Amino acid sequence: MIIIGTGPAGLTAGLYAARAELHPIIFEGNLPGGQLMTTTYVDNWPGTAHILGPDLMKNMREQVQSFGAEIKRQTIEKVDLTQHPFKIVTKREEFLTHSLIIASGTSHKKLTIPGEQEYWNKGVSTCAVCDGAFYKNKRVLVVGGGDSAMEDASFMTNFTDDITIVHILDKLTASVPMQQRVLKNHHIKIIYESTVSEIKGNGLHVTDVTITHTKTKAEQTLPFDAVFVAIGLKPNTELFKGQLELNNHGYIIHKQYTETSIPGVFAAGDVADSRYRQAITAAGSGCMAALDAERYLKTNGY
Amino acid sequence: MIIIGTGPAGLTAGLYAARAELHPIIFEGNLPGGQLMTTTYVDNWPGTAHILGPDLMKNMREQVQSFGAEIKRQTIEKVDLTQHPFKIVTKREEFLTHSLIIASGTSHKKLTIPGEQEYWNKGVSTCAVCDGAFYKNKRVLVVGGGDSAMEDASFMTNFTDDITIVHILDKLTASVPMQQRVLKNHHIKIIYESTVSEIKGNGLHVTDVTITHTKTKAEQTLPFDAVFVAIGLKPNTELFKGQLELNNHGYIIHKQYTETSIPGVFAAGDVADSRYRQAITAAGSGCMAALDAERYLKTNGY
Repeated sequence: MIIIGTGPAGLTAGLYAARAELHPIIFEGNLPGGQLMTTTYVDNWPGTAHILGPDLMKNMREQVQSFGAEIKRQTIEKVDLTQHPFKIVTKREEFLTHSLIIASGTSHKKLTIPGEQEYWNKGVSTCAVCDGAFYKNKRVLVVGGGDSAMEDASFMTNFTDDITIVHILDKLTASVPMQQRVLKNHHIKIIYESTVSEIKGNGLHVTDVTITHTKTKAEQTLPFDAVFVAIGLKPNTELFKGQLELNNHGYIIHKQYTETSIPGVFAAGDVADSRYRQAITAAGSGCMAALDAERYLKTNGY
Repeated sequence: MIIIGTGPAGLTAGLYAARAELHPIIFEGNLPGGQLMTTTYVDNWPGTAHILGPDLMKNMREQVQSFGAEIKRQTIEKVDLTQHPFKIVTKREEFLTHSLIIASGTSHKKLTIPGEQEYWNKGVSTCAVCDGAFYKNKRVLVVGGGDSAMEDASFMTNFTDDITIVHILDKLTASVPMQQRVLKNHHIKIIYESTVSEIKGNGLHVTDVTITHTKTKAEQTLPFDAVFVAIGLKPNTELFKGQLELNNHGYIIHKQYTETSIPGVFAAGDVADSRYRQAITAAGSGCMAALDAERYLKTNGY
């Protein structure tokens, strides 16, 4: 059994597969541990009152490895699901597997505006937790109105009193507790019904951002040192395009249980879930995928 | 919002509902904490390498209460889902709620054979973890071939060297790691293709058990002091019969997501899942039910 992804879904699948003595190999992407690695404290992991996201993932990882799962730090370059066993190709090696669990998660969407690419990692970031500390007492802009935008803005109050949120709609879309954390904080300003249209800099670093009102089209250019982009997620399904059935937004479609359109290929976690996207729902579906895959292997005599 | 059940599903639903400031009331059944209260160590709760089931549930409970969820120890006697808001009736009080999450779990099936009722709690039990210590160096019979039977038999090796499993089929149905724990242990004997047909005693306590071969119908009566019944589970859906759509085995049917046949009523955990039945899958679905219920309340303006 091969599992792609080391977020809560991939690791929980690995935990169940390892305990069933299926000796799974788990491939790690470019964000080992998944989205929880970019958060701070997690208060809604049942049974653990208050834990840093990266610590929770470290615990999960060690637990899975203790049962004999192997975690590989190799980027997968190609997946061939047209043959069985399926073929997984990395730069260095090829692997064949009778069952595959895809738990490759989602990545942050980009703004695709002038200046974004030029100033990427020079002021533009999708991870306040990773890069926030570089902007002590600086002017920070957060783009988005959902949970991750609220999380980023709240987190940045650790470093600076000058935080602005730009949101395309006239009200926030984040969950109630996340919204309240932001609305109560007088260091966070919100500009509604607006988008970021250009990021400007001095060649080395972001210096200004142009913000456009969605209705009036009025533009204002304001000085900012950092732009955290939190406008949503896209599923990491590039490797599977044309092979697996995906929905309009690129998410893997579950046929029944965690089964995909190809027998022997299962999907778990955010890569097949645009509705709930919680660590605990991902973990639950990782467990389901492992049990479904185990059943598939047994039923087909592998 | 009212939630029925304090297992992993009910408490995770409570955690998410409380954090969304929905002030949920969670009703506790006659097994507070659910099935995990009757297990020993749990090794497959992601992120927590090795923890006693009751400790895990205690942690979850405290976490949920810390966010303001109220847990009520009142037995629900009647539920009226024909009116909205729904009516929940206990011996002492009546409650009205716009949304209900059912996470009432499953209970152990009984053998329904002569002597079972007479010697219930006088040698007959469904909980080795609860009652095992009473049978130090005694002769113990475990009935069943699934995970819980294996768990009971393994657990009883802490107390006695004289353990017999009776299983109706010619091989065990438990998961691979659970089977191996039992098959490796030379203190556990297995009688295959047989059922328990009668439990006998001296009026005070179990003394003998009659075992019948399923094919030959040959009977043998053997001396035993304890009988642990682990032949499967039935969903706790008595309160909802005739009101909610249930499947042939009495499990609640999910229409879409965690929705049941009545809008505003959601189901999570084992009461709607005969396929996976894991703590982590129950917790995942509890989270989903809370998010679905939150969405329902908002959409309908409650």
